[in-house]
Amino acid sequence: MKLNVKCVMVDTGFTPVVIINHLDAIRYDLHPRDRVLIETVGKREKRKFISVIDISTTDTSVKSGTIGLLAEAQAAIDANDGDVVDVHPAPKPESIKIIRKKMRGERLSEKELDTVVKDIVADELTEIELTYFVSAVSMHDLSLEEVAAMTKAVAKNGCRFNAKRKPVVDKHCIGGIPGNRTTMVVVPILAAFGMTIPKTSSRAITSPAGTADTMETLAKVSLSLPEMERVVAETGGCMAWGGSLGLAPADDKIIRIEKPMSIDAPGLMLSSVMAKKFSVGATHVLIDIPYGRTAKVVTRAEAEALRIHFLTIGKLLNMEMLVVLTDGSQPIGRGIGPLLEARDVMAVLQRAPDAPVDLRVKALRLAGEMLEFCGGVQKGSGLEVATSILESGSALRKMEEIIAAQGKTSPSEFRLGHQRAVVVASRGGVVRSIDNKAISKLARMAGAPITRGAGLYLHKKVGDRVKKGEALYTAYADSAEKIRHVRKYHEELKPYTIR
Amino acid sequence: MKLNVKCVMVDTGFTPVVIINHLDAIRYDLHPRDRVLIETVGKREKRKFISVIDISTTDTSVKSGTIGLLAEAQAAIDANDGDVVDVHPAPKPESIKIIRKKMRGERLSEKELDTVVKDIVADELTEIELTYFVSAVSMHDLSLEEVAAMTKAVAKNGCRFNAKRKPVVDKHCIGGIPGNRTTMVVVPILAAFGMTIPKTSSRAITSPAGTADTMETLAKVSLSLPEMERVVAETGGCMAWGGSLGLAPADDKIIRIEKPMSIDAPGLMLSSVMAKKFSVGATHVLIDIPYGRTAKVVTRAEAEALRIHFLTIGKLLNMEMLVVLTDGSQPIGRGIGPLLEARDVMAVLQRAPDAPVDLRVKALRLAGEMLEFCGGVQKGSGLEVATSILESGSALRKMEEIIAAQGKTSPSEFRLGHQRAVVVASRGGVVRSIDNKAISKLARMAGAPITRGAGLYLHKKVGDRVKKGEALYTAYADSAEKIRHVRKYHEELKPYTIR
Repeated sequence: MKLNVKCVMVDTGFTPVVIINHLDAIRYDLHPRDRVLIETVGKREKRKFISVIDISTTDTSVKSGTIGLLAEAQAAIDANDGDVVDVHPAPKPESIKIIRKKMRGERLSEKELDTVVKDIVADELTEIELTYFVSAVSMHDLSLEEVAAMTKAVAKNGCRFNAKRKPVVDKHCIGGIPGNRTTMVVVPILAAFGMTIPKTSSRAITSPAGTADTMETLAKVSLSLPEMERVVAETGGCMAWGGSLGLAPADDKIIRIEKPMSIDAPGLMLSSVMAKKFSVGATHVLIDIPYGRTAKVVTRAEAEALRIHFLTIGKLLNMEMLVVLTDGSQPIGRGIGPLLEARDVMAVLQRAPDAPVDLRVKALRLAGEMLEFCGGVQKGSGLEVATSILESGSALRKMEEIIAAQGKTSPSEFRLGHQRAVVVASRGGVVRSIDNKAISKLARMAGAPITRGAGLYLHKKVGDRVKKGEALYTAYADSAEKIRHVRKYHEELKPYTIR
Repeated sequence: MKLNVKCVMVDTGFTPVVIINHLDAIRYDLHPRDRVLIETVGKREKRKFISVIDISTTDTSVKSGTIGLLAEAQAAIDANDGDVVDVHPAPKPESIKIIRKKMRGERLSEKELDTVVKDIVADELTEIELTYFVSAVSMHDLSLEEVAAMTKAVAKNGCRFNAKRKPVVDKHCIGGIPGNRTTMVVVPILAAFGMTIPKTSSRAITSPAGTADTMETLAKVSLSLPEMERVVAETGGCMAWGGSLGLAPADDKIIRIEKPMSIDAPGLMLSSVMAKKFSVGATHVLIDIPYGRTAKVVTRAEAEALRIHFLTIGKLLNMEMLVVLTDGSQPIGRGIGPLLEARDVMAVLQRAPDAPVDLRVKALRLAGEMLEFCGGVQKGSGLEVATSILESGSALRKMEEIIAAQGKTSPSEFRLGHQRAVVVASRGGVVRSIDNKAISKLARMAGAPITRGAGLYLHKKVGDRVKKGEALYTAYADSAEKIRHVRKYHEELKPYTIR
């Protein structure tokens, strides 16, 4: 891609680095990566910042008597060549000792984890120091007590949502299943029943649509915390993008350090999920763990282990947990991509005849379980109550209320991709399986999630009979090239197994 | 301290970071910390560099369609605002997989360690990625086979010295004992005997003098590799500063990452020491491990364990090792600080009546052991041969030869500090111990090593009788303030125990 250059002085969110000459380092007894306080001298407005020291062993770039400031440090004190600054040793943050302790494999207390998270949020740690923390935590793993403490620390050192009533219900899906937009059916049902469900969601990172992307085709999702509070006060629920709320700022920085090594430390994943629930004050949390051969969680045993972890941490955090294992063997619904998925959701809420049955069934099951779990509905009749809320139209009316409260999107804003291709079966038989990962990839190739109206519409699901030449799915995109891509990679990825 | 600001575009020695907008990231399927190749477009000279991506989730600093370049990236392609660049995905270096393997606690092969070190030297790794490596290596530790492989990798991926003859002798001291300048007596003795001993040394980091700092008061030590080769060809020996030779560039970067956590991973320490021996082609290596209550190595058991490690690694590297445990209970010699230590060394070589006996005895012992070990001298007569080389004046003549070959320093260049203070005993008795760490600190306070003529001269050593009010040591500095500091901290640090 071609991009225009912009020279930026950006806040990297880490302690900046300055460079001094090796002679000055010896003279003032400073060692590499020591922390110093740097203050402007002789300027009207005194400015200062904390940074760490790098030492130049040659005299070419930074001579004795000068200090090298990189862009970030320059910006911090608005410095120019020839300005004079005063440099004082500054103490290391307390976290360093705690990180060293974790590196030795010792357990950390709630207070210690809180100290580390505070320093992360306050940009007190350098990128190297935070990497040591993430690395120690992923190599030695966190105990469940530590995960709970980490969760609290991440949530407490961020903004928090206060529903001002109880119970507060929340849900989370582990992900990995395209089209799995149950949240957008469950939230209106539970809110229509009278529950408080302040749901925050993420945008897609590696999938063709996140709940935030999908909801955005219907309503504004970038809410401020006061806006979210208003929406929940008015309707009982919301479906907001978590990114604009600042609920768990430490989490974002940790994730940034995990990426380069694709670190997927179970402890950090659990605390990342639970911190967002904790920070909205959730008292009852539903966790959906779909598992299947092409899902994120592959085996039932893995799913069971994860379930136990969630239950234990919930107990430690004083949250009631309902963890359900669900079928992750194929995509849910028919639409894959933000607009197509939103249409599936609305079809279910509108009780349209072509509404995807599997999305409806799964959403009703989850809503029913929550009603029994914390809605005072009698064991065994949750599904019935959920169904009647959907069938009566009150779930649809609640959805419309929430959309209006968040700010309705103009219907003309998003359109289905005008370039289309019907991809057909190369042989007849019964659809034996549909590969979640392949379907995700093809929908992304069509342009989802960035092109809201791009993606796939699945005509056939597992168990359907199909004739040779019959349509499997329609791809929607905004360019012929993307459609060609989908056709080409369909052959390679073979998302459908027909026998 | 006050320093003048210089806005630098410095080569941090790591892969630079560029920032793109989240929409572009989704559009082009790029994730945080993905690697990209960035090329200039429409400029006469096409320039390019590899960098990693950071993603801006707001549109304030980096809008969609633009790319944010920090100073380092700007410098890499000489970019200005508004220039256009082309961005292509680039593969991750092979090291990433290998680092992940070490994080899981698995052993790495010689080839794998070589790949990582190659990438370190070529700046292919980001600071975060290298931190994961250092962290994995320090938490899981390296096996001795891995240390040997790491040693070879570090040495091979750097410049190398070729003596063009064998055997090549080298020595190393673990450090921690002030005044311990045996190298400067041992090298001339062994070279005078006809051995080849291309010695490289470090400057002081936390001590009041390194061998390089001390030698520098007599001769030039910042030699290029060809200069070093000439000196060794002419004289058989040298005492050069390792820093200007580029013998183990990976080592410097690893040390930079270890500093913030004060990581002292035994495996990395061993490979760091041995790599420098390997890169000068040493066939026979003497390792001096002083141990004592205030030394770096405290107990005999620790020293023994370290000895076994050195022997094992030497075997794996095909180097003959002679590891000796020595007395580290007090400073060696009387002078502490570059010029004062150089005077002790010269007094020993000149057979002056006031030459410190302990420095002479220890140096003769080490030289004698090496003569027996690899000089063909009969077992039991090494000390005698070493003594006769010293007594005959040939060691002194060899030292003068080496000084002349490296480039003699003008004698007027370095003077003893003109501010002096005699620190006296506050009670009478026998000196029971002298604290190495306290003596180091006081000498540094006096201005060593940066002020070459600063430091301490010890009038009393362990076992000496002392009367109340009698001189313990004289401090030399270039300012009255530093002398006051020494006096003040003498009371606090109590370097002498007299009973």
